[in-house]
Amino acid sequence: MSSPPSYRNPAPTVDIIIEIEDQIVLIERKNPPFGWALPGGFVDYGESFEEAARREAKEETGLDVHLLRQLHTYSDPKRDPRQHTVSTVFIARASGTPTGGDDAKTARLYRLDALPPLAFDHASILADYAHFKESGELPRYE
Amino acid sequence: MSSPPSYRNPAPTVDIIIEIEDQIVLIERKNPPFGWALPGGFVDYGESFEEAARREAKEETGLDVHLLRQLHTYSDPKRDPRQHTVSTVFIARASGTPTGGDDAKTARLYRLDALPPLAFDHASILADYAHFKESGELPRYE
Repeated sequence: MSSPPSYRNPAPTVDIIIEIEDQIVLIERKNPPFGWALPGGFVDYGESFEEAARREAKEETGLDVHLLRQLHTYSDPKRDPRQHTVSTVFIARASGTPTGGDDAKTARLYRLDALPPLAFDHASILADYAHFKESGELPRYE
Repeated sequence: MSSPPSYRNPAPTVDIIIEIEDQIVLIERKNPPFGWALPGGFVDYGESFEEAARREAKEETGLDVHLLRQLHTYSDPKRDPRQHTVSTVFIARASGTPTGGDDAKTARLYRLDALPPLAFDHASILADYAHFKESGELPRYE
C-alpha cells in the first residue's frame, strides 16, 4: 500500500560521515546544487536506512563502510533547495582511497578543520559532528 | 517539486517518548494495528520532525511537550505491517495528565518495568530507551 492519495511526505535520505583515519570523505556533486557534500542519497522503498547508507557510500565513494552509529536526523523544510528532504546522518569507518562514482564527480579526504564550502546544511551537520568528536555529546534541544 | 514520478519512498513518521516524572505516556490505538503504542504519526510535507513531534504529542495526549533529544531512527521495512514507514523517535518531557485524542482512544502513564504489549517495534524502541536511561548510551551498530 502506498500513502493515501494526495498525502505528500518529506522524502527520506541518508548521508554518511565516513572516517578514514583522522579525515572524512566528501564528494563533489555532479548535479545541482553543485559543490562539496557528504556522500548520501534517497532511500528506496523497502530498504532500511542502514542498507541505503552502505549502498550510497559504495556508489559515490567506492568504499565499503562499517556503520558506527547515527548522528542525528535533520528535517528543516528549507535544508534542501529542491524539495523537502530529510536526512538521517550516519557515522561510519572505512579504509582505502575514495573514488568518485554515480552522482559524485570526485571524492576526496578532508580534515575537519579545513573543510571546503558545503552544499545543503552539511556545514551545520559537520559542526554537530565536530562537537560530538570533542565532547561525546550528540545534538540536544535547548 | 515532488519526487520523480514512479519513485516511491518510505514514509517518515515521528514517535515521542514523553516522560512525566518516572513514567512514560502510552496511547491505546483507535485504528489497526490495535494495542498500545508510543504517541506519534506521519510527518507533513513542509513540517520539521520537531514540529511534527510536538503536534502529534498534543493531538494524541493533550500534552505540551518539551523535546529533549532524538533517541534513534528506526527503518526496518517490516516494522509496520501497513507499509514501509520509518520512525524518528524523540525523548520529551511534560507535566500534567495525558488524555487520549485524535487517533488515540486513551492515553495512560506506564512505568518502564510494567509495560503492556506494544504495537509495531515499540517494545524494541523502549528497550533502547531503557538502555539509554541506565547507561547514557544511544544505539550503536556492532
